[in-house]
Amino acid sequence: MGEAIRICEVGPRDGLQIARGEMDLDTRLQWIRMMAAAGVREIEVGSFVSPRLVPQMAQTGLLLPQVLKIDGLTVCALACNLKGAIAAYEAGAHVIAIPVSVSDTHSRANVNKSTQGQVEAVAAVVDWLRAQPRAVRVDVALATAFGCSLEGSVPVTRVAEVGRALAQVGVDELSLADTVGYAHPGSVRAAVRATQDAVGARLTKLHLHDTMGLGLANALAGLDEGIRAFDACLGGLGGCPFAPGASGNIVTEDLVFMLQSMGYDCGIDLPALIAARAPLAAALPEEPLRGGVALAGLPRSHAPLAN
Amino acid sequence: MGEAIRICEVGPRDGLQIARGEMDLDTRLQWIRMMAAAGVREIEVGSFVSPRLVPQMAQTGLLLPQVLKIDGLTVCALACNLKGAIAAYEAGAHVIAIPVSVSDTHSRANVNKSTQGQVEAVAAVVDWLRAQPRAVRVDVALATAFGCSLEGSVPVTRVAEVGRALAQVGVDELSLADTVGYAHPGSVRAAVRATQDAVGARLTKLHLHDTMGLGLANALAGLDEGIRAFDACLGGLGGCPFAPGASGNIVTEDLVFMLQSMGYDCGIDLPALIAARAPLAAALPEEPLRGGVALAGLPRSHAPLAN
Repeated sequence: MGEAIRICEVGPRDGLQIARGEMDLDTRLQWIRMMAAAGVREIEVGSFVSPRLVPQMAQTGLLLPQVLKIDGLTVCALACNLKGAIAAYEAGAHVIAIPVSVSDTHSRANVNKSTQGQVEAVAAVVDWLRAQPRAVRVDVALATAFGCSLEGSVPVTRVAEVGRALAQVGVDELSLADTVGYAHPGSVRAAVRATQDAVGARLTKLHLHDTMGLGLANALAGLDEGIRAFDACLGGLGGCPFAPGASGNIVTEDLVFMLQSMGYDCGIDLPALIAARAPLAAALPEEPLRGGVALAGLPRSHAPLAN
Repeated sequence: MGEAIRICEVGPRDGLQIARGEMDLDTRLQWIRMMAAAGVREIEVGSFVSPRLVPQMAQTGLLLPQVLKIDGLTVCALACNLKGAIAAYEAGAHVIAIPVSVSDTHSRANVNKSTQGQVEAVAAVVDWLRAQPRAVRVDVALATAFGCSLEGSVPVTRVAEVGRALAQVGVDELSLADTVGYAHPGSVRAAVRATQDAVGARLTKLHLHDTMGLGLANALAGLDEGIRAFDACLGGLGGCPFAPGASGNIVTEDLVFMLQSMGYDCGIDLPALIAARAPLAAALPEEPLRGGVALAGLPRSHAPLAN
């Protein structure tokens, strides 16, 4: 068995949020169950945000009781503020994920607060959660950590500084997110190193897009720097509304193929994971599913290389 | 200026060879001129092989006199045997590229000779060329170096052994080719190291496919091991007839974006390279052009990162 890598499937939240078409709750549940049965141990199932702004996620509260019954699954939900975090806590989420944009301009566009204002919102969430009887993990994604479509380049010193502020308010885990797809292996290495210097092992994860075709190269760069957890979307769903036509998140199937071929242990049965594309394809016929492994088929030599 | 990386555009040969649709000679020439004007210094423009087996390449001899007029362009042509190499030499090619499959089964399917038989064919080509008045570079691509759809896994000891035999017969440069798209960063590193141990700096280049979505991650792994030359296809043309529907070669535009973002110097003007997709798209309307950078557009922050 190789070293373990944690895969966090974010398709049910990040993917469905901007997909063309709707997936009803029963299909979402079936889809999540198939991915969990394939060995995905952590899934971001939805978000507790304004149903006016993100109508696709309005029924997340109804989904939680069902997905919490799935044996061994860590259930994550996204929230942007205390109100959403309270709703996620009360619905039973194991992990509450909160975005903080490193770019001030993007932060205001995304959550109507400056970066500093959003760090304070995270502090309020942490304080509230720590006073509750049930322990919940709080993850913060440092959005636009590799560049911003509004501000351009983002200095790594700024990424590290925002990471340090979040570590100080007590978040459990930090991830770096390539929100608009500008990352390249050099910037991944630089930002990961700078953030590790600032917050140590609290930086656990990368959230990468495949906008420029560099998604898995960027994952490899992160892996080389010690990152052992990745967000990904089945079929490469998701993306960036600022780059229409561009690819979305890195493809879970291809990421797992790469990692398991290299000898890492994702705990995932790849043919079973690929089979979980079926409900997605059926529910979202207008949404092109991406993924090399699913299209080309597993190579003849894959079995002996896996794990 | 960063360290130089040599990009060899193989679209006019590897891409057009299996593309749906035909591109007439004038359009080929226009396309090649546009890529050369964008800074691509080495282009595989066609092949001297049986016009019965590969009709798309039948007019390569007519193309050569024109492309040889392009200032500063290294003109490569593929040949599989002495007859083709003589034709390529007589047409004026600067580089003759010859495939040698490391997998015996694939070699027989591809050139109707065993691997050893094809090494002997290369030796005959080298002997003939060295007796001619004009110096020509002889490059051999070690096909199926990362696995074979017919034989499965290919041991790195075998790759190194075939590489050593080719170095002994006097080829100038060797490349490792992921003919069927099975490579992953671990196998790239292993095969590159083993081949470098066998032939040293004569291993110059990787020829990678994006079949499983790992193309640029594999390029990064090769870069980490000291590889400084890559084949690629504009728009990600090409592919493998054994994996229908699968992606083709790595996308030149995305590769150059990655490398130049990382500070390497490919000498390529990326917007001009992206503009060279136009004649390709017009001539091959049935062939889907891939590429993240072309679809999403260059990021705002790209300019200061390039070179």
